[in-house]
Formats: sequence, C-alpha cells, structure tokens
Amino acid sequence: MNAIHNTAIISSKAQIGKNVVIGPYSIIHDNVVLHEDVSIGAFCEIGVENNLTSGDPLVIGRGGQIRSHSVFYSGSVFGEHLVTGHRTTVREGTLAGRNLQIGTLSDIQGDCTIGDHVRLHSNVHISKASKIGNFVWIFPYVVLTNDPHPPSDVRLGSIIEDYAVIATMTVILPGIIIARHTLVGAHSLVNADTEESMLYAGSPARKICSASRIRLRDGTRRNAYPWIRHFTRGYPDDVITKWREISDDETRQSNEAL
Amino acid sequence: MNAIHNTAIISSKAQIGKNVVIGPYSIIHDNVVLHEDVSIGAFCEIGVENNLTSGDPLVIGRGGQIRSHSVFYSGSVFGEHLVTGHRTTVREGTLAGRNLQIGTLSDIQGDCTIGDHVRLHSNVHISKASKIGNFVWIFPYVVLTNDPHPPSDVRLGSIIEDYAVIATMTVILPGIIIARHTLVGAHSLVNADTEESMLYAGSPARKICSASRIRLRDGTRRNAYPWIRHFTRGYPDDVITKWREISDDETRQSNEAL
Amino acid sequence: MNAIHNTAIISSKAQIGKNVVIGPYSIIHDNVVLHEDVSIGAFCEIGVENNLTSGDPLVIGRGGQIRSHSVFYSGSVFGEHLVTGHRTTVREGTLAGRNLQIGTLSDIQGDCTIGDHVRLHSNVHISKASKIGNFVWIFPYVVLTNDPHPPSDVRLGSIIEDYAVIATMTVILPGIIIARHTLVGAHSLVNADTEESMLYAGSPARKICSASRIRLRDGTRRNAYPWIRHFTRGYPDDVITKWREISDDETRQSNEAL
Repeated sequence: MNAIHNTAIISSKAQIGKNVVIGPYSIIHDNVVLHEDVSIGAFCEIGVENNLTSGDPLVIGRGGQIRSHSVFYSGSVFGEHLVTGHRTTVREGTLAGRNLQIGTLSDIQGDCTIGDHVRLHSNVHISKASKIGNFVWIFPYVVLTNDPHPPSDVRLGSIIEDYAVIATMTVILPGIIIARHTLVGAHSLVNADTEESMLYAGSPARKICSASRIRLRDGTRRNAYPWIRHFTRGYPDDVITKWREISDDETRQSNEAL
Repeated sequence: MNAIHNTAIISSKAQIGKNVVIGPYSIIHDNVVLHEDVSIGAFCEIGVENNLTSGDPLVIGRGGQIRSHSVFYSGSVFGEHLVTGHRTTVREGTLAGRNLQIGTLSDIQGDCTIGDHVRLHSNVHISKASKIGNFVWIFPYVVLTNDPHPPSDVRLGSIIEDYAVIATMTVILPGIIIARHTLVGAHSLVNADTEESMLYAGSPARKICSASRIRLRDGTRRNAYPWIRHFTRGYPDDVITKWREISDDETRQSNEAL
Repeated sequence: MNAIHNTAIISSKAQIGKNVVIGPYSIIHDNVVLHEDVSIGAFCEIGVENNLTSGDPLVIGRGGQIRSHSVFYSGSVFGEHLVTGHRTTVREGTLAGRNLQIGTLSDIQGDCTIGDHVRLHSNVHISKASKIGNFVWIFPYVVLTNDPHPPSDVRLGSIIEDYAVIATMTVILPGIIIARHTLVGAHSLVNADTEESMLYAGSPARKICSASRIRLRDGTRRNAYPWIRHFTRGYPDDVITKWREISDDETRQSNEAL
C-alpha cells in the first residue's frame, strides 16, 4: 500500500512503484520513475524539467530515501538504496550506482557519474562532468571544480578513484585525478594528480606520507588506512566479506615484504 | 491566542504553549514541546524522528523563533529565546542554553552541548560531540570536525570555550580545544589547542599575538578584544552589566601591571 | 494570463504583473511588486518583513525567475531578468541591476549594491554593505566579509569591481577592493587591495602574474583573460557586440606595444 500524503501533488504520468511513501506538500512531476519502497520526504520537488533536461526520466531505484526540501531534476538514474539528507539538489544527467548517500545541502550539478557505495557528507559541491568511483568519501564543504580558467566553456571534471577520502573544506582543481585510497587532509587545495594510498595536505597540497602511517586513536594503534580494515558501518554484508579477504591478503603481503 | 496557520499539520500529541505562532505548511510531529511565545516560520518540519532519535521530545523554550524551511529532530532541548535563520538543521541529542542564534543554512549534527548566548552565523557546520561554551561566536562556513581519521568510529568533538571567536571559512580539527577569548582568523585550519586571549591564523594556524593588540577601526583605536568591552548588541541587560564590571576590573588590573 | 497555483498564498496587497507564474505552496506577502513575466517556483516566501525592513517593497523586474525554496525579504529592488537557483536568500536593502544570476543556496545579507550582468554561483555568501560592480563572477563557497574585528558594530563592505573573477572557497576580508579584471584563484584569502588584471592566489593571497598569461585549455592557447574575449554565454547581444569592439581595440594596442 502506498502512503502518499493527501497534500502531495503527483503527476498522473509519474510511475510510482509499490510501497512508495511521499510526504506532505511534495511535488512529483511527469518524468519520474520511483521504484518500490522509495520514500520521499516533505517539501520536495522531484523531476524538475528545464531547457537542459533531455526528456529522459529521473529514476530512483528500490528503497531510495530522499529527505525533506530536496530538489531532483529529471534525467538522472540512481541505483538501489539511495539515501539523502535534507535540501539536497541533483541536476540532470547524473548516473549513480547503488547505496549512495548524499548529505544535507549537498549539490550535484549534473552530468556526473558516481559509483557504488559512495558517501557525500553535508554541503558537498560536485561540479558537472565529475567522475566518482566506488566507496569514495567526500566530507563537508568540499568542492570538486571543473573550469580551469573560469568563466569559460571548457569542462574538465575531476576524477575521484575508488576508496579515496577527501576531508572537509578542500578544493579539487579541474581535471585532477585523486588516486585510489588517497587521503586528502582538511582545508587543502589539490592542484596535481595524487599517488595511490598517500596522504596529501596543504594549500596547495603536498604529499606528506603514506596514509597507512596514521594510527587509529581508538586505543589499538592499528593503521587507520586503508579505512576498509576497520570501518564497515552501513555497508552490505557481501562488501564487508570481500574487504576482509582483501585486507587479509594485503596484510600477508605486507608482512612478507618486511 | 495561538496563530496556527490552517495549512500547518500539527500532531495532536504535540504540546503547544500559549501565544505560539506556526506558519503556513509547517509540520509539527508528535514528540514536540513548544513553550509559550514560540514562533515557527513556513515550510518547517519540527520533531522529525528516525532510528537515531531516543524517544525524548524536542523542547523549544519560551520565545523561541525558528525561521522558514528549518528542520529540527526530536530529542533536543533549547533554552529561552532561540533565534534561527532560514533552512537550519538541528539533529537529535543537542542540549543548548538560552538566547542561542543559529544562522541561515547552519547545521548542528546532534549530540552537542551549547551554552548560553552563543552566536552561530550563517552556514556553520557543528559536528556531533562538539562542546560549545557561553558567549561563543562562530562565523560563516566554519566547520567543527570530530573524526581524526575519517571515516572511522572514533568521535573526538572539539571544545570551544567561553567568549571564543572563530572567523569565517575555518576548520577546527577533532578534539581541539579553543580556549577562552581565543580569536581564530578567517580561512584557518586549527590543528592544536590554543592559548587564552591569543590570535591564531593560517593553515595550519599559528599563534600571531595577543588578540588585544587588534585595534577597533571605529576611530577610537580602542582594543577590539575582548570584544565584550565594546559589543553588546542583542545581549540582555544583566549580561551587559556584568561585562562592564569585568571589563573595569580587568582594565584596572592591566593598568596596575603596566 | 497569470498561472498562480491554487495552493499559493498571495496577499491581496501584492502587485502582480501580467503573465506572472507562481508555483505550488509559495507565499507572496503584502509588500511585493512582481513585474510582467516573473516566475516564482514552489515553496518560496517572497516579501518577508521583520524589524530591519524599511517599509519599502520588494521589486522583481520583468522576466525574473526565482527558483524553489527561495526567501526574499521586502525592501530590495532587482532589475530585469534576475535568475536564481534553489533556496536562495536575499535580505532587505539590496539594489541590483539587470540580468543577475544568484546560484543555489547563495545568501545575500542585505544593504548591498550589485551592478548589471553579475554571476553569483552556488553557495556564495555576500555580507551586508558589499558593493559589486558589473560583469563580476563569484564562484561557490566564496565569502565576502564586512567586520574587521568580529563581533563589532563596524561595517566595512568589500568592493568588487567590473569583470573581476573570484574562484571557489575564497574569503575577501573587510573593506578590500578587488580591482577590475582581477582574477583570484581558488581557496585564497585576500587581505589587501588588488591591482587590475592580475592573478592573485594563496592564503594570504599574493600577486602571481598578469591574469592574461593563463592560456585557454581548449586547444587554441588563446589568452584566458580578459574572459570577455572568449566567453559570451548568457549575455545579451548588445553587450557582446561592445565586448568585441573593446577586445579588438585592446588586441591592436597590445600588438603595437610588442
């Protein structure tokens, strides 16, 4: 049974799956596909069209949860189990995998690709043409830019590879590649491609050391990176199992190298 | 007489005091206590519950004013005369004193304590487990962080002591103590505890000098810090009277020391 | 014919021009003048009054478009063809020219003057008493400040002159003049007036070189600055024609100088 609030304004052309919840005063436009178990909070506007949208629908995969005051344009596709905070904005042409989290006030400007299990914390700004891999973490007030000499018509999206972590209040300059397992410290400006598994910090950012040299401040003094060795909250069981196998394997290799 | 707009959706379980105003299209959930003279703007959602809320109510003290598009979760308590800007977000488990101001777009992530007469300007991000004293000022785009090696399960909230001032676009790293009367300049990254009454600036921040060496640019060239010697707008009379006594006393002591 | 949604709440005192569109659930207060062809999205609150507003109306010029969840106070005047993103905030006492764009989440604090054809991207914070010229570009997470020793009663707005460009996550300190055609790089802190047509970057920002030394990354290696030589999207024909004349003239002068 659907639970669509009687103040919600739902286009008769929108495709609404089973067990969908739509909160008070929300607006669902024509070109929207909500799969089963999707939940939309109050005061949302879903499926906005303008002169940049393509006629393709907005598709929200099974179990997606969009919190209040969010605005999604048509022409994007989200895999299963999307979760957003409040007042998120997602423009047209975004293709995202499953289990994406988009924090309160974050803004995805469109024409992006985003992998599986990505975490965008609050107030993250993703410029058009950005490419984000799997298991990436981006923290509050991070901006991915795309124009090397603004304003211009050149678009050089940045590329954030799997497992990379970008800490708060950091800018990634246009076209930069943040490599797998890179850690970028808070309040940094990254103006050059990074090497895998290293820590970068500063404005402009410099390579500091291997991220693995950072120790967990939980009493164990284990390596804090790669973070998948100790942090599993919110990931599905099959992912965690796979991480354990990788970690054991890598640990064995490191031990052999010593 | 209450002035509750006829489009507002109010739970019959919510406790609504005398002279409460609730604007158009706002939603008040079950677990909410609004004391007398509280005013809620349009498009707010007050008392949101999720799997992290505790069953405790949201309590808004007497005379509180929450502006439009704001979202407050249940399980927080605010003293008298809260004032917010638009689109503020306050998560569960926050305990705040009286006369708090939270600017437009600011986001309090929950599980925080906040003293009396605190001023959070626009677009401030307060992480979980932060502790903010009394008479603190935090300016736009400041982020208080809490995870020393993100992502992890370690929570080290920062501590901002009484009368401290943090200028715009500054990051406070996890677990850092900003001492009483510290001034942190704009666009800084604070990675170490500060000393009382000193000015810090830079990324990472360094100690520059005593904050009291900054002169007011109002023609008088008085000391700009401690700011309580010249700035009293918006504070109650009893507070201002107390500040005058402290200031006179400190001035006398400084003169004796010279 | 006006297209005012039947859920919108419109004061009978508001002056609504021809062909005005007002979206679902939006609120138009008493002291508002909407010229013809203005479009207001959903969930907006237009013409808010408080103890700082003057009794002057909010005037939105012909063809203005205000997107959803925006809040405009009374007492500001906007020329023709204003365009905003979502959740913009504009306080009282702002006087802006024509063809202004204000991005999603941007916040104009009031008592500002803004020229013609200005572009504020997403999440820009304009403090009270700022003065912005014509053809200025300000990118995401830029803050213009106004208090040289916060908190105080001194207001020193910054001045951004024609054609200046301020890249993302930059702070302009109070009273600073950003000269014509200046380019400020991303993640900078500007604490001194700039010279015309130069590039500044860093925290604090230093003069790097002439902005004209930056080459377009579009295969042509033309000068990227002044940007009006290559970027014309969204400007009216009369402006573009004038720019071509200026550019030809300047190019001739530079060639003669060589």
